[in-house]
Amino acid sequence: MSAYHPLTEQEAIQIAGSLEGFFPAGAALQCREIGDGNLNLVFHITDSISGKSLIMKQALPYAKVVGESWPLTLDRARIESEKLLLEGKLAPGLVPVVYKYDAELALTVMEDLSDHIIMRQGLIAGTRYPKFADDISTFIARTLFFTSDLGMNQQDKKMQVKAFINPELCKITEDLIFDDPYTNSPNNSFDPAIQDAAEALWQDNGLHFEVALLREKFLTNAQALLHGDLHTGSVFVTPASTKVIDPEFAYYGPIGFDIGAVIANLLLNFAGQEHWTADADQRGDFRRYLTDTVRDVWNLFDKKFRALWDEHGLDRIASETPGYKDYYMNRLLQDAVGFAGCKIVRRIVGLSHVIDIDRIPDAAVREKAQRLALTIGTSLILNNRKTQSIEEVIELANSAASK
Amino acid sequence: MSAYHPLTEQEAIQIAGSLEGFFPAGAALQCREIGDGNLNLVFHITDSISGKSLIMKQALPYAKVVGESWPLTLDRARIESEKLLLEGKLAPGLVPVVYKYDAELALTVMEDLSDHIIMRQGLIAGTRYPKFADDISTFIARTLFFTSDLGMNQQDKKMQVKAFINPELCKITEDLIFDDPYTNSPNNSFDPAIQDAAEALWQDNGLHFEVALLREKFLTNAQALLHGDLHTGSVFVTPASTKVIDPEFAYYGPIGFDIGAVIANLLLNFAGQEHWTADADQRGDFRRYLTDTVRDVWNLFDKKFRALWDEHGLDRIASETPGYKDYYMNRLLQDAVGFAGCKIVRRIVGLSHVIDIDRIPDAAVREKAQRLALTIGTSLILNNRKTQSIEEVIELANSAASK
Repeated sequence: MSAYHPLTEQEAIQIAGSLEGFFPAGAALQCREIGDGNLNLVFHITDSISGKSLIMKQALPYAKVVGESWPLTLDRARIESEKLLLEGKLAPGLVPVVYKYDAELALTVMEDLSDHIIMRQGLIAGTRYPKFADDISTFIARTLFFTSDLGMNQQDKKMQVKAFINPELCKITEDLIFDDPYTNSPNNSFDPAIQDAAEALWQDNGLHFEVALLREKFLTNAQALLHGDLHTGSVFVTPASTKVIDPEFAYYGPIGFDIGAVIANLLLNFAGQEHWTADADQRGDFRRYLTDTVRDVWNLFDKKFRALWDEHGLDRIASETPGYKDYYMNRLLQDAVGFAGCKIVRRIVGLSHVIDIDRIPDAAVREKAQRLALTIGTSLILNNRKTQSIEEVIELANSAASK
Repeated sequence: MSAYHPLTEQEAIQIAGSLEGFFPAGAALQCREIGDGNLNLVFHITDSISGKSLIMKQALPYAKVVGESWPLTLDRARIESEKLLLEGKLAPGLVPVVYKYDAELALTVMEDLSDHIIMRQGLIAGTRYPKFADDISTFIARTLFFTSDLGMNQQDKKMQVKAFINPELCKITEDLIFDDPYTNSPNNSFDPAIQDAAEALWQDNGLHFEVALLREKFLTNAQALLHGDLHTGSVFVTPASTKVIDPEFAYYGPIGFDIGAVIANLLLNFAGQEHWTADADQRGDFRRYLTDTVRDVWNLFDKKFRALWDEHGLDRIASETPGYKDYYMNRLLQDAVGFAGCKIVRRIVGLSHVIDIDRIPDAAVREKAQRLALTIGTSLILNNRKTQSIEEVIELANSAASK
């Protein structure tokens, strides 16, 4: 079974059963393939008698997106597995436990999180997650600080950069986030109703200038080992627990990219509330919960990252020079704001959308939400290098929503 | 002979004789070890009858600096050899030809450039190199553009980043250029006469702030494949020819670092002219030649890099967005100015000095040259992020020299 091939459910059961000490001997395992089939197979394996279960994720050698098939390296399974293990060390309890990685089969066997739900679905259902801001800020502060030149041996960091070179997955981001939405690309996909707004993106030189700078940072700025795809579809939650999954886009990039992904997806849900909460007062309340979460995520990240720097900073001149830390943190905020804007825009006009917006059934309401998201996204991009406080992001979202 | 060991002259002759088609069969080769023994063995092998000759450079597994011995990876021989071959393709005629690379022995066999001299020595002797600015600007423009995200496939670039991860050599730069000179480090070395000036460096928070930013760029900004040590001791010249050697510090870093190295070393010689040209008029003339060269190097680089971008630019949004190219080029100038400043300062108070200054026999004149270099260096660092034109660099050097 060792040469690579997509596993059958029967084979998945066989591998799961052979995991030492996990399932009781002779357990009658059940298996269900629950992946969306685009990039990976995902097997959910359960033993109804002991109640034990696990997940097996196997990378497929291609990506299926809107019918097209792109070849994709299986090495991303190694990257995902190594990144998960590292995250588990740096931010214990905030990622699924990895039980086994099989390089040949591009297979990661890990903790079953079926008692959690995907945060995007939770937010759409109007659920609040009181632990999320604290948990996700711990996750990003610790995984980013301890893989940066500030918090890890700078020579070891270079070897880690080497281990996480990830050209194919980076190219997906480079194309879909930092190029296509700003030109009449065949990869784009948007409702005909907002053709005018899409065309406006293609013609805005000021916007292109900022996107070109952000793209350059994504291409060149090896600040820390990113998750690389930290949207609310990569977070499993319960009101009491947060688990970050799917780090196959991991590579050394700009810290603001991970933070921006979290902010962007909270604000995409904010825009989608046009529909999901019909009552205007309740909608205002939930939007306030979302912007409070944006504020808390940044402020808690800022506080925790600074505390780690104070306690574990390894770069003498960066740690000792007055003013440097403030300047550094403000640039992270500015980068996060710019990247958040790019991540919002692409979810409206680019190839890959979010259900917070796309599942709004009423066309007129959906269009309103799309235009609101585009207004927020482009404003964040245009203002990123001027931003001095997370409050500006919240004001900008509220002001766009009140129009 | 294949297992690694430092070669004897006899073994070097044997290897040279076995190079297919280079020396006539049965030639009586002569060998002289001409390295300084700090990092490498360098064998000069000649056949007096045919007049043919070559150089064999073998990496040593340690660096001897001021008596200390640091272990150093032999992998730098691979990096040097691969970088030389790449430079030869991108900037033909401006580097020695590589005849052979032996990974096991960490040995590169290459073109003999004995008809050239080390540029630093030439400048000290008052020689002008009318082709230098044109040649070196071609070298940096082409080697940097075609290894950047602007001029090479962005996925291939990532694999090249991986191949040129160079932690140990980078650490030398990180310590000796971006840390030690700004603190009372045991690695520092300077004339007791300028103790006050050295201490002033250790206490200047404004300077530390800029150095911390430049250090951060060196650590994180994977813009292009640098030479990494492009001072005038790494350039062989005749009035009609320029050959860049010794790229063992190569890694993906900020483009301005290579440009700044050239500018810094021209300005170190400028400071040293306090002694080397005794006649005040002649001194002014040679200094003008040096600042003209600084101007030409930048302006020609700027022109050539832009032309390459216009003709071979591969990044759609970076190429098409109005204003982006100007902004990018101005940042390269600013980075070059900042890095030039750091490279000047470290040659006065840091571990490794330059003979343009150190060989000035008269203590008072030497002190004047050292203080002049420090004034120029610190001014460049403090002004780097404001710089809009290379003329500011020249004015700053002239104004410091006229005091």
